[in-house]
Amino acid sequence: MTMNVRGYAAQSAKDALAPFRFERRDARADDVVIEILYCGVCHSDLHTARNDWGDSVYPVVPGHEVIGRVASVGAQVSRFKAGDHVGVGCMVDSCRQCDPCRQGLEQYCAQFPTLTYNARDRHDHRPTYGGYSERIVVSEQFVLKLPDGLDPAGAAPLLCAGITTWSPLRHWKAGKGSKVAVVGLGGLGHMALKLANALGAEVTLFTRSPGKEADAIRLGAHHVVLSTDAVQMESVAGQFDLIIDTVPYVHDLNPYLPTLSISGTLVLVGYLGPLDPFVNSVPLIMGRKSVAGSLIGGIAETQEMLDFCGQHGITSDIEIIKMQEINAAYERMLKSDVKYRFVIDMASLNA
Amino acid sequence: MTMNVRGYAAQSAKDALAPFRFERRDARADDVVIEILYCGVCHSDLHTARNDWGDSVYPVVPGHEVIGRVASVGAQVSRFKAGDHVGVGCMVDSCRQCDPCRQGLEQYCAQFPTLTYNARDRHDHRPTYGGYSERIVVSEQFVLKLPDGLDPAGAAPLLCAGITTWSPLRHWKAGKGSKVAVVGLGGLGHMALKLANALGAEVTLFTRSPGKEADAIRLGAHHVVLSTDAVQMESVAGQFDLIIDTVPYVHDLNPYLPTLSISGTLVLVGYLGPLDPFVNSVPLIMGRKSVAGSLIGGIAETQEMLDFCGQHGITSDIEIIKMQEINAAYERMLKSDVKYRFVIDMASLNA
Ligand SMILES: [Zn+2]
Ligand SMILES: [Zn+2]
Ligand SMILES: [Zn+2]
Ligand SMILES: [Zn+2]
Repeated sequence: MTMNVRGYAAQSAKDALAPFRFERRDARADDVVIEILYCGVCHSDLHTARNDWGDSVYPVVPGHEVIGRVASVGAQVSRFKAGDHVGVGCMVDSCRQCDPCRQGLEQYCAQFPTLTYNARDRHDHRPTYGGYSERIVVSEQFVLKLPDGLDPAGAAPLLCAGITTWSPLRHWKAGKGSKVAVVGLGGLGHMALKLANALGAEVTLFTRSPGKEADAIRLGAHHVVLSTDAVQMESVAGQFDLIIDTVPYVHDLNPYLPTLSISGTLVLVGYLGPLDPFVNSVPLIMGRKSVAGSLIGGIAETQEMLDFCGQHGITSDIEIIKMQEINAAYERMLKSDVKYRFVIDMASLNA
Repeated sequence: MTMNVRGYAAQSAKDALAPFRFERRDARADDVVIEILYCGVCHSDLHTARNDWGDSVYPVVPGHEVIGRVASVGAQVSRFKAGDHVGVGCMVDSCRQCDPCRQGLEQYCAQFPTLTYNARDRHDHRPTYGGYSERIVVSEQFVLKLPDGLDPAGAAPLLCAGITTWSPLRHWKAGKGSKVAVVGLGGLGHMALKLANALGAEVTLFTRSPGKEADAIRLGAHHVVLSTDAVQMESVAGQFDLIIDTVPYVHDLNPYLPTLSISGTLVLVGYLGPLDPFVNSVPLIMGRKSVAGSLIGGIAETQEMLDFCGQHGITSDIEIIKMQEINAAYERMLKSDVKYRFVIDMASLNA
């Protein structure tokens, strides 16, 4: 009833990732068995492998930016067939019955969605293991179609970095005539630039470090503002309808609030924790501004994003690595030394 | 060119309010001269009289919840005539040309609106003096029509407390099928209950003090939740599309965030300053929730609110005082000893 799968796992917070063999369930009637081709490397992978959030259950097989080929399908699967190129993101299931689930907001499932790794299956209660592995088994409701013509390796990061920035861009209606700023130029930030640009918005990158202008412009920014330069910050006062803040660590939001337009929103997508230093309510009240948060995106919305990327030829800028290089890649990620996402070529598992 | 007017003013931060004679301009071509009948007493009046915000310029004649009768109009005034019942709120002018002004968001004027008191007229640069006086002169664009049938004394607080709660209720689309909570039961909070109820929302009052249930229900709440009771708070987890937070002092927002629904918004309308303790981004991100602010409302929106109140027979619950009682009223306000707004009967100036 199970299949034996090879992958890479952390066996404890202190251990480097290393080869690991484990069992996955055979396909249930609604399951798709996916041979993994590529898996993007997200900061969450590193944080979970090292138990930075205190909730890791070992062994941890990370990976939630999965692109693969359908190997086989369960008897009731109608939307996929062997050979299809597909994707799997941060969720592999949810309750499917609560209000958010019915509205296509599975990421906000009232029962909490089943995460792709470091969670437990809702039916057999076995641990979930992620995409740093040769195969994954996922209910077809949580499998995405990869549009024809998109590079499968470059598409992998769309499943987390892409949808995490797409969802707030869509919810807050970025598009022609709107001005969007992006804080931070990493895996999330570079996708935000590409997607906001393709949606037709006028796009600005906020960055703390000079020297990113050329790359930012190439990725879709129309303007670059050095957030440490008071004159530059003043020059964009009241400009932005939406700020997508991708910074993954605690930072001061107050310098950005005056750059929001009336009724504008700053959306946090990278940092979970206390907003230290204190956010001041004065700019919120004096301009009907909001500070909000957003988490990945729903399944239908993820498909919408992939289809949009297919139409616009959008993929992530990636550096392909072998599975065996993952630990060095984590060290480089910690130094932001990647443009802009590592993607594991899973064929390397056979090397 | 000027008219001599009697009113009450603070001559310094330490002085009690006392009788004061001052000059107002004669009507310009677009001005309406208003004989003041009633003026509501807002916390801002007290804070400005006592220089609590550090920006008071003395003498200060407070009052921005003005109901009066038109005494005369300038040559170009077309919308008002002598004898009309009218209102004046927190603003008496704005630049009228910036984007917010053109959108009817004069409260967010890029040049800052001219406040009804403790400001300077945009044309003659004379100080503005508020409604604790027998007459006021205001450009017709900033004068509101009082609907027939609304009690003029009870309508006065609509000009600040009413519109301050109406504007976020409308902007965030409170109405049938939505669930609205109100934090705090004072001048703003009691109006929020009435207006949210009349808009068709299901309304809950959050309060820290037991014993307010009967009053809250009478004012329009369907439910009352004691915010100091963890069990009651847990029972409303994920409930509210919109929370109108009227608390005027620093307070912890974190207990309220879990009670927001997915995509819900907590709007601050009472407290200006640092959000201490730190707001945690986790509930924002895990539910696409927002913390926002809102300031009074635009002029057209204020008229909309007054017309709505006219249709629904909504006024503030008030306690009428004489002008000479204002200092004692301030002391009672500081103890929240008013249900729910003091309104000065300006005829008392003649006593
Ligand atoms: Zn991720
Ligand atoms: Zn659900
Ligand atoms: Zn007021
Ligand atoms: Zn303006």
